[in-house]
Amino acid sequence: MKYRSYCPLARSLDVIGDKWTLLVLREIITFRRTTFKEISQMREGIATNILADRLGKLTKEKLLQRRQSTTNKLIYHYLPTQKALDLLPVVRELADWSSDHLFGKKETPAKLEL
Amino acid sequence: MKYRSYCPLARSLDVIGDKWTLLVLREIITFRRTTFKEISQMREGIATNILADRLGKLTKEKLLQRRQSTTNKLIYHYLPTQKALDLLPVVRELADWSSDHLFGKKETPAKLEL
Repeated sequence: MKYRSYCPLARSLDVIGDKWTLLVLREIITFRRTTFKEISQMREGIATNILADRLGKLTKEKLLQRRQSTTNKLIYHYLPTQKALDLLPVVRELADWSSDHLFGKKETPAKLEL
Repeated sequence: MKYRSYCPLARSLDVIGDKWTLLVLREIITFRRTTFKEISQMREGIATNILADRLGKLTKEKLLQRRQSTTNKLIYHYLPTQKALDLLPVVRELADWSSDHLFGKKETPAKLEL
């Protein structure tokens, strides 16, 4: 990956700065959905070409490991590395900020077990 | 803003999930660059149409307030609201993760005073 600058914030956004990457990690890490098919069924409705792109990028950047299923060789599981798990504090702060600022008084944020 | 879901993580990404939004806030909050011209000179080289889009969106979402300069009526300052300042813990966690995982042994992350 060619980074834009030596600013750590900018580099982090080079890797996870988009609308979908952290949601893909949410499916894998918090909901234990590890196959393409399972992840593609996320509630926000991700397009399959976007999901394929993000899984490829996350694997290349070593946030995910791709492993063939032992029971069905046509199926691959995407498993989080420590690099991905270390993003959980970021996800927690984003969820806290969002719950504080992006929900109306009568709305309840969905639970996100972290 | 029409949000994708009731997941707080997904909502946060609806607002700041892209490569540039947090860098625009970095310029304004940590470097005190508050005019379009100042922000457009950020080291990562933002395109002016992208900057105009993000400043408009952040103003609409009440993360920034647009205020006319008292000395030059042609100039506007973009000032952060509490909603924007409350993103600092997110930025800190992103910068920590990035410093830990995205820099080589001989590279030094640029300082980001938060």
